[in-house]
Amino acid sequence: MSGSSFGKLFQITTWGESHGKGIGVVIDGCPPGIEMNEAIIQKMLDRRRPGGSITSTSRKESDTAKILSGVFEGQTTGTPISIMVENKDAKSKAYNSIANTYRPGHGDFTYQAKYGIRDWRGGGRSSARETVGRVAAGAVANAVLQKENIEIIVHTTALGSVKVETFDQHVVYENMFLCADMLAASRMEDEVNQVRQEGDSLGGIVEIRAKNIPPGLGEPVFDKLDADLAKALMSIGAVKGVEIGSGFGTASMRGSQNNDPISPDGFLTNNSGGILAGISNGDEIIVRVAVKPIPSISIEQKTVDSENNPTRIKIKGRHDISAIPRINVVCEAMMNLVLVDHLLRQQAIK
Amino acid sequence: MSGSSFGKLFQITTWGESHGKGIGVVIDGCPPGIEMNEAIIQKMLDRRRPGGSITSTSRKESDTAKILSGVFEGQTTGTPISIMVENKDAKSKAYNSIANTYRPGHGDFTYQAKYGIRDWRGGGRSSARETVGRVAAGAVANAVLQKENIEIIVHTTALGSVKVETFDQHVVYENMFLCADMLAASRMEDEVNQVRQEGDSLGGIVEIRAKNIPPGLGEPVFDKLDADLAKALMSIGAVKGVEIGSGFGTASMRGSQNNDPISPDGFLTNNSGGILAGISNGDEIIVRVAVKPIPSISIEQKTVDSENNPTRIKIKGRHDISAIPRINVVCEAMMNLVLVDHLLRQQAIK
Amino acid sequence: MSGSSFGKLFQITTWGESHGKGIGVVIDGCPPGIEMNEAIIQKMLDRRRPGGSITSTSRKESDTAKILSGVFEGQTTGTPISIMVENKDAKSKAYNSIANTYRPGHGDFTYQAKYGIRDWRGGGRSSARETVGRVAAGAVANAVLQKENIEIIVHTTALGSVKVETFDQHVVYENMFLCADMLAASRMEDEVNQVRQEGDSLGGIVEIRAKNIPPGLGEPVFDKLDADLAKALMSIGAVKGVEIGSGFGTASMRGSQNNDPISPDGFLTNNSGGILAGISNGDEIIVRVAVKPIPSISIEQKTVDSENNPTRIKIKGRHDISAIPRINVVCEAMMNLVLVDHLLRQQAIK
Amino acid sequence: MSGSSFGKLFQITTWGESHGKGIGVVIDGCPPGIEMNEAIIQKMLDRRRPGGSITSTSRKESDTAKILSGVFEGQTTGTPISIMVENKDAKSKAYNSIANTYRPGHGDFTYQAKYGIRDWRGGGRSSARETVGRVAAGAVANAVLQKENIEIIVHTTALGSVKVETFDQHVVYENMFLCADMLAASRMEDEVNQVRQEGDSLGGIVEIRAKNIPPGLGEPVFDKLDADLAKALMSIGAVKGVEIGSGFGTASMRGSQNNDPISPDGFLTNNSGGILAGISNGDEIIVRVAVKPIPSISIEQKTVDSENNPTRIKIKGRHDISAIPRINVVCEAMMNLVLVDHLLRQQAIK
Repeated sequence: MSGSSFGKLFQITTWGESHGKGIGVVIDGCPPGIEMNEAIIQKMLDRRRPGGSITSTSRKESDTAKILSGVFEGQTTGTPISIMVENKDAKSKAYNSIANTYRPGHGDFTYQAKYGIRDWRGGGRSSARETVGRVAAGAVANAVLQKENIEIIVHTTALGSVKVETFDQHVVYENMFLCADMLAASRMEDEVNQVRQEGDSLGGIVEIRAKNIPPGLGEPVFDKLDADLAKALMSIGAVKGVEIGSGFGTASMRGSQNNDPISPDGFLTNNSGGILAGISNGDEIIVRVAVKPIPSISIEQKTVDSENNPTRIKIKGRHDISAIPRINVVCEAMMNLVLVDHLLRQQAIK
Repeated sequence: MSGSSFGKLFQITTWGESHGKGIGVVIDGCPPGIEMNEAIIQKMLDRRRPGGSITSTSRKESDTAKILSGVFEGQTTGTPISIMVENKDAKSKAYNSIANTYRPGHGDFTYQAKYGIRDWRGGGRSSARETVGRVAAGAVANAVLQKENIEIIVHTTALGSVKVETFDQHVVYENMFLCADMLAASRMEDEVNQVRQEGDSLGGIVEIRAKNIPPGLGEPVFDKLDADLAKALMSIGAVKGVEIGSGFGTASMRGSQNNDPISPDGFLTNNSGGILAGISNGDEIIVRVAVKPIPSISIEQKTVDSENNPTRIKIKGRHDISAIPRINVVCEAMMNLVLVDHLLRQQAIK
Repeated sequence: MSGSSFGKLFQITTWGESHGKGIGVVIDGCPPGIEMNEAIIQKMLDRRRPGGSITSTSRKESDTAKILSGVFEGQTTGTPISIMVENKDAKSKAYNSIANTYRPGHGDFTYQAKYGIRDWRGGGRSSARETVGRVAAGAVANAVLQKENIEIIVHTTALGSVKVETFDQHVVYENMFLCADMLAASRMEDEVNQVRQEGDSLGGIVEIRAKNIPPGLGEPVFDKLDADLAKALMSIGAVKGVEIGSGFGTASMRGSQNNDPISPDGFLTNNSGGILAGISNGDEIIVRVAVKPIPSISIEQKTVDSENNPTRIKIKGRHDISAIPRINVVCEAMMNLVLVDHLLRQQAIK
Repeated sequence: MSGSSFGKLFQITTWGESHGKGIGVVIDGCPPGIEMNEAIIQKMLDRRRPGGSITSTSRKESDTAKILSGVFEGQTTGTPISIMVENKDAKSKAYNSIANTYRPGHGDFTYQAKYGIRDWRGGGRSSARETVGRVAAGAVANAVLQKENIEIIVHTTALGSVKVETFDQHVVYENMFLCADMLAASRMEDEVNQVRQEGDSLGGIVEIRAKNIPPGLGEPVFDKLDADLAKALMSIGAVKGVEIGSGFGTASMRGSQNNDPISPDGFLTNNSGGILAGISNGDEIIVRVAVKPIPSISIEQKTVDSENNPTRIKIKGRHDISAIPRINVVCEAMMNLVLVDHLLRQQAIK
């Protein structure tokens, strides 16, 4: 129980390190009879791959997903679905210099403190490469959600100092930042170019929306739908904040502003983000996450070595400027996983 | 599995409705040999009770905790600790008028959608009274944490439009808003008075800090310490956002600003909020939550009845202006529960 | 997580000691809209109470169940159902002499070894009185199963040296041993009378059958229906063996004898006990458990005190001659709990 | 949650079908710093492979285990250990004839009833090949137990009509039946030869013992050590009964015979099988399981096809005469997994 499992009914367990033999996930609890094949998984995995100027990662992984079990003649069988992606382009030697130095902002120090041993190659288990398993599982979850016509939209609402000002869903995939505002996307590109020259990195904000959610998903008290979303999203390495609906904005609102009035045609506003008392109300679910800047920067930083001697470090090698936009599909995957789990939980008591 | 259990090793299950026979919690997994008695629990429960001008709740509950099992001769025995608080001052008749009307901002609509039945008296299971069980369990968790010298501080950093500007820990309990800034507390009082006249309500922000945390608590991937804190805190009814350390602020920071440099004496800054890669780094843990305004307001609101006919509602009866400061001890309880659970998890693999 | 919870979807948590304030259970995951009231629970609890010559227990507990939450206007609401029975006739002083002496066959020694502390009054948590919570929960489970027309039969197939030779379901409740063979029941009474004179106790075998089980309940691999039944029944204090269908008898059968041939009208024999590869096949589920003799006997036994000095003990006070027939309803309750849990699990993936 | 996970702290998830791409297991919760490599796992896996006259299985699998994650420089890291064995000699065509016929004694009918789809090739997920994952995980569990000097012995006590009469631990690996009685082993061989000629199969009984168990393992009420052992062992496909210590024999014993007297040097007898009130007492743990005859026999049997038409079936191809002795190491693996899980649980509360 090292914490690598997620979900109560649609339960996934991920495994793998950045520079080990591969990365994978076992999905236990997928309903039978869902159309499934490697192309469905690959399509979602490909959205996680680097591309565009923001992702300067030079690691070239085809990230080809293999389904090892649980699918028969193109359909899920109800038994565990094991999916694996081999690591091929793992250049461990590039990391040799950091075997005994803790990188600021990374988990090097804390893994060592916890376990007394760590696979330091590329960050080992704490690498963002761990999210391959999440995305593969998210693709399977998505196939279940599609039977209910549930649709997920994920887009970038801020990158560095640039914030979006409009929301045009159709342009999200027309710019490399997955921004629903082309003008903002253009300003983001300027900021990325400048930051790259400085050897620094950027954070941002990602919004995830889910449409056509039936009312009634989510459980009272601890397993509220928003609580499980908060855990799911905060469990992504770079995420430092999660808010639902009007989120932190509600702190300075009055009750009369924040309450969503109800009409026979539904809720008249959506400050709640589609969740009331932890249960979906049928409105669009809206969640935003704060993404911290990539900690690997080429600017020199103070740190210590494994003997606690002071030293300095400049991170070399291949690194993105921001976890955005590659993190976006990971957020979507986690939303999928939470929704499908609560969908099954609700079916159980019907 | 209606979602009323929390924790993997220090596992609690809460039960009870606002106007039922009582509210309670069963704690399964508390280590043996911890000094425990009803006074320890009562002390923390009393901090949840109404008091001061902000809490106009007229419900008078002594909220007396009874330990029903798991404690023998003043010590925990390792077996389940059952704690119960009887409901005494439940005036259900006051709610008769809302049996068939969905209150905006409450769970009336969603519980009905989920279950097809709901105990509408005082909100039933969705009432904030549910947190009595959390706080009682949090008091037991606290007794375990004290053996490790772990210390929790919880204070209000914003109420309505007022934000704190200083942090003086010693004054937190010297004002009714649990504010570490007496000047801000004074301005909060002004705002509360005005809002009360308007029949409206206020939201705010609460910060929870934990000191003397050993490095190594938290698990990789899904059960990260911050992920579990996010779930724990977001599961509190009024909470709509959670952030760790610099939280949403990191979205506009550069990596060179956000990374906490490491020295032989520890981390030089604490943007991480004491958690790196989901594992405690030994620094102070810092979490903030956004608290939405109390949805029960005396201003008239649009809604529908259970037949989906449009209607209007004015909430009468006893209601607080803000969930703050009564929610503060609930946040503290959830922090306690997450920390003790991860403390036991770490002990298991040592 | 002291092990007091059972079930994945219909999850129960029991609490309480023999001589504490009470005994109870919280049921989390009961579907909404099930008719429920205290009389339904009391009826099953009453079957657990002492009666007849075999149960010489002089403890007089009315064992009155109170529903504290989760039921509204005679129906379950989907939220946790808390049920409590107060301890009234707890004569702790009778146990004072054994505070520092380990009774052979009881958990005194092992609880002390595990926790370093134990509530020795009446066996504390290890008392058979713990089963009150199981039976109360079993009554709620039964109400769910009745909607599916599932029917449970439990009867005694052996007591001491007497074994049943016929199966006449109608006479089970016409003799105090819950025997489906009146002649055997008569011989059991003779044996009980003799053993009582000797100050000794008896074991036996109980069979539990379930009819009208839909095919498809149970999960592959670890959570097989028979595996969960084995755990459920072996978790009852006095049970030392569990077998399904022809059980230990299959060890000396040939495959050609043991395999149940299939016809268009169903299985032609039922050596499998209604479970194939861990999944119900629609046939009657048949399970038998071995019940050890009550360890509390008035014959002198060798033991040690808490300082590990040799001593001798004669158990005085009120004790039954056999756990049968009071244990029978406990077995039934555990069967109910396993079946309802798997029923909900199956609904989740449909 | 199709039931393919086992354990609370040392949690394993298995995956794979008989004729899919492979079989595997993910272990989440193994403590860090345990020496581990593929040879350790292979050694235990090899004991599961066919050999000797009883195992006429002609399937030739090298069953080579690959560790894919969680081990670094020869030690466990605390993160998930993924182990995979590729399927190489899967002759699916041999099974084509049974795609639409339910084999008696197998899970064909029940899987179809449960899921509406099944991977019928070689039994798919219900194949005994599924135990590869259990044994691989059991080898890792064993490495943890060895640090505590815990030792497991597994031997055959009955095969068909032959029962052992002596217990000489040293000869267990000197005969192909893993029998602690060479004379019985010789008679078993005679019986196997006769049964093979008849095209039939045999059941038997396996005993698993564990030495050097610290007192205090196991939890009160549901997660008793014997309850978890019963589940673990009953979850093995061919097992139809489980008994602890004197097991079903206790049903006809008197309390004065069955109670184990205690002396300053320990328990004087061991009818309890080393477990009192669900918690280990420091004595040897003794468990026996009833193994049903292999259902695949070449004798003709009545059955139905997938359209519920009556038909007859003779199972051709490669099949063992008995699950014994190949099942013995699977029983040992399950014992290992239960013990290591409870060892970690006990460490958590110390």
